[in-house]
Amino acid sequence: MTTEYTPLDTLDAKGFLNDFHHTTIYGATPRNGIDRQAGTAEHGAVRAWFRERARALGFDIRIDSIGNQFATYTFHEGAPFVWVGSHLDSQPLGGRFDGTYGVIAALHAAARIVEQVAAGDRPTPALNIAVVDWFNEEGARFAPSLMGSGTLVGTFDRDEMWAVTDDKGITVKEALESIGCLGTDAPPEVAAYAEIHIEQGRILERESVKIGVVDQSWYTQKLLVKVIGEQSHTGATIMADRHDALPAAAEIILATEQVVENFDPEQIVTSIGKIAVQPNSPIVVPRQVDMTIDLRADLKEDVLEARRILKEKMAEIAQRRNLTIEATDFDIRDIQHYPVEGQELTEKAAADAGISHMRMRTMAGHDSVAMNRIVPAVMIFIPSEGGVSHCEREFTSDEDMVAGVDVFTYVLGRMVDGELDGVEPGESL
Amino acid sequence: MTTEYTPLDTLDAKGFLNDFHHTTIYGATPRNGIDRQAGTAEHGAVRAWFRERARALGFDIRIDSIGNQFATYTFHEGAPFVWVGSHLDSQPLGGRFDGTYGVIAALHAAARIVEQVAAGDRPTPALNIAVVDWFNEEGARFAPSLMGSGTLVGTFDRDEMWAVTDDKGITVKEALESIGCLGTDAPPEVAAYAEIHIEQGRILERESVKIGVVDQSWYTQKLLVKVIGEQSHTGATIMADRHDALPAAAEIILATEQVVENFDPEQIVTSIGKIAVQPNSPIVVPRQVDMTIDLRADLKEDVLEARRILKEKMAEIAQRRNLTIEATDFDIRDIQHYPVEGQELTEKAAADAGISHMRMRTMAGHDSVAMNRIVPAVMIFIPSEGGVSHCEREFTSDEDMVAGVDVFTYVLGRMVDGELDGVEPGESL
Repeated sequence: MTTEYTPLDTLDAKGFLNDFHHTTIYGATPRNGIDRQAGTAEHGAVRAWFRERARALGFDIRIDSIGNQFATYTFHEGAPFVWVGSHLDSQPLGGRFDGTYGVIAALHAAARIVEQVAAGDRPTPALNIAVVDWFNEEGARFAPSLMGSGTLVGTFDRDEMWAVTDDKGITVKEALESIGCLGTDAPPEVAAYAEIHIEQGRILERESVKIGVVDQSWYTQKLLVKVIGEQSHTGATIMADRHDALPAAAEIILATEQVVENFDPEQIVTSIGKIAVQPNSPIVVPRQVDMTIDLRADLKEDVLEARRILKEKMAEIAQRRNLTIEATDFDIRDIQHYPVEGQELTEKAAADAGISHMRMRTMAGHDSVAMNRIVPAVMIFIPSEGGVSHCEREFTSDEDMVAGVDVFTYVLGRMVDGELDGVEPGESL
Repeated sequence: MTTEYTPLDTLDAKGFLNDFHHTTIYGATPRNGIDRQAGTAEHGAVRAWFRERARALGFDIRIDSIGNQFATYTFHEGAPFVWVGSHLDSQPLGGRFDGTYGVIAALHAAARIVEQVAAGDRPTPALNIAVVDWFNEEGARFAPSLMGSGTLVGTFDRDEMWAVTDDKGITVKEALESIGCLGTDAPPEVAAYAEIHIEQGRILERESVKIGVVDQSWYTQKLLVKVIGEQSHTGATIMADRHDALPAAAEIILATEQVVENFDPEQIVTSIGKIAVQPNSPIVVPRQVDMTIDLRADLKEDVLEARRILKEKMAEIAQRRNLTIEATDFDIRDIQHYPVEGQELTEKAAADAGISHMRMRTMAGHDSVAMNRIVPAVMIFIPSEGGVSHCEREFTSDEDMVAGVDVFTYVLGRMVDGELDGVEPGESL
């Protein structure tokens, strides 16, 4: 596969697009998507390519013990690093822009600054640069999502994450070993963080704006739901004698969808993406269903109210159907405010380049949400056509990607000059 | 495991119970159930024990190419065989009586007749005996159910059945090979068939009757349902932009449960036992759900009416939710009438032994339903405590099992004397 790739020796739009579009061959799917779940061979292949490309551009590689990889460039020994990046893993049958765009944009922004310094076109920065490719942002094969960044900032325990298994019983540690990404390097010292990503919604498209300046994240939480009924025979057991876990689960699925009607439209999203039925045999009445409810809203109180309504509904279902329903809080993520100084910096970058911009929220989680807990973080969006994401149809134009890299290069340039020095990390509410 | 087993040299109640209870160690589960899905190592182990035990009792073994195994006893070279038996495979976390009782009861009934002949206590029968252990009655690991008997009677194609795969992609042929049951023997010539089985319902218990004389089977059919929506992001995709396959599937699950309200209670059962969600990731809105709807009723028209209502409902759901729902008919099984001569024979056997009996229907499918298409078949039930089946709680008392073996021995004795000679196979309506 990699034989098709010839790097260009230019870091302009053409050079960026050459690298970005090359990544889409790793885990390519029939309809222009990618399938590069964390720790798979396809994920390992794109990560190996990234290391090779970064080395060719003059960067050094470090890999930490949860599989985050860093391409570092040191201007001053001992100075801390501005980190920029995103992730190269994807959802099953996912899109080729989600995460990957941010990693390649960060590598090119960093390489442009290195080139400018080498050419004497700008002063040597005060801070060093690290381009980070986070491990397992998606959480598709191994839950939770944001595993690499969440572990690095201390939200998750490294040993607990190592022990997480996929559906086949393979652990995160084994998967990291299998792709050569179980590192032993210490991460570089971090001063600040910036990330650029596709919006994955359609607000920028609707407003005809090219750059989203993210001011805060939505409040999110999951509920692990376990419905416990009793196994019986789909033929011989009369309806009155059954304690079928599946129709109870179906009622919960519909309640999860309907609960949004209690709130303003577009202020909340709720979903169930994962379900496991036991024993899952065509002629056996199911004894158990496990599901993950995903609740996200602009306002924390809306998530808490949706959770309250659903828990009440589940208690009613359990009583009426005479079976057991357990619901456990999981993966609660507070609203994160990105520092206003970083937002203003992005706005200035866009304005200087004559690119339209607006402030907005992020509904989805990103590695910047984790990093914002320990350093000032900047989060920038570019448009997603039709707002579709986590699917093969996901699309962003070359033009919008290139405009994003330009704005991002400006932002990184100011950050390595110390623009966010002294700024506090983001506030979590 | 088998070292715990010591065969008794008596064929009375004690000898039967010694053999029956021994089988429960193969695939034993923590709460007194068994897990012996077709073609697994556990299934292979109990089948190997069965062959060894049958040989010790003087029987010869044949295995056909779809894995049905026969323990034959020949009184007259060239005479046809009365077949008696059931199956040793189980559902996942299934019960220890379902199928296994019928195989061990058949082996003991056959061995008692052989012993009586050897002792000069009865005339040599006109017909020979074959105890059959059918392959994959349950259809849990490999669909459809009744695979061995259905193939033998020509309902299913042998090569198509060989190619059926389990969830891991293993074929039936590979599974048969792995347990040494991919045979090359021709089945013995068949004259008639008899099977004894636990009821798996609670009618006998409710009526305080010990023997159920089955007069006909329920009409059954399945619908393979495919809901096709579109994959998107559980965080970033607003509710209005989604085509979530899972809530649509949830509506179908509830409609399947509710459709029974259009009919007389206890005259119909409907269920969904198997469901597959794609991609089944906690933060991805599902693009596809595949399910199997199981419809069974005493009257064919009730199944057809339930199917009509559900198909209409699915069309309405698909239109309202703007997604695709396909429903394909699968595994249609007509009502089978067991020949009245066989029913009367069972009634006489029970009456002579002073055991209570009643005529009844079978809601569940059995291998006798398949055999009844080609030869006159007899189907006998014994009570199931609480009517529970296909679960670890399944239970029938030693006393009820022993009474069943006595009745069954009488029936087999009359059958090998030619009692059902000239009787037509069952009628299918």
